[in-house]
Amino acid sequence: MGFREHLQSVCQSCEGAIACTLMGVDGIEIDTHLVGNATLDVKSLLVEYSGLFRGAREAAEAHEAGGLAELSIGTEKVVTVARLVSPEYVLVMALEPGGNLGKARYLLRVTAPKLMAEL
Amino acid sequence: MGFREHLQSVCQSCEGAIACTLMGVDGIEIDTHLVGNATLDVKSLLVEYSGLFRGAREAAEAHEAGGLAELSIGTEKVVTVARLVSPEYVLVMALEPGGNLGKARYLLRVTAPKLMAEL
Repeated sequence: MGFREHLQSVCQSCEGAIACTLMGVDGIEIDTHLVGNATLDVKSLLVEYSGLFRGAREAAEAHEAGGLAELSIGTEKVVTVARLVSPEYVLVMALEPGGNLGKARYLLRVTAPKLMAEL
Repeated sequence: MGFREHLQSVCQSCEGAIACTLMGVDGIEIDTHLVGNATLDVKSLLVEYSGLFRGAREAAEAHEAGGLAELSIGTEKVVTVARLVSPEYVLVMALEPGGNLGKARYLLRVTAPKLMAEL
């Protein structure tokens, strides 16, 4: 099962999924699965959010809160949840505001080790 | 019921709560309820996180994702969830990693309007 199949499987298993992306912590995308016709530019948004992921990691380390595991950002139009796959890579899912955030978090948690094994 | 009582009530109703804070989006604290003896400096961490909240708001607006509603950051030692109370104020809860994040999100959602009415 390649990257793309894992990303597709995550989207298919979660109500309200818009996209699932594997990207570097530097914001550079490795692969993305997009569901249907997203009305907003999810890819650009996720690149912008990657800066927040780096900021959260630095803030947590500076204040001895341990390594960053997960970051979730909810806006009026899209909810995103990101999980660290390795120190360099992050798995991100975008959902509609009414999507199943709990399931998305669960799916990212179980899928991250599978992707890490392929990196 | 004053600010402090609301913050205390939120902590008492949520398993694994460490602290609940009402703060300006600029990171300046209005009031905080701390549970027991936190092992890390939660207040300083939340001030640092407030910068991420501002960053997430700017990123979301720039990419037409709508207004920011919620931001959650999970590390090895502490999970925080922040919700906008008004454009200037944010309600933040810190939890132990095994704490009830779903309930924390619910409590912030129902408590935010009560606090807004008093601001």
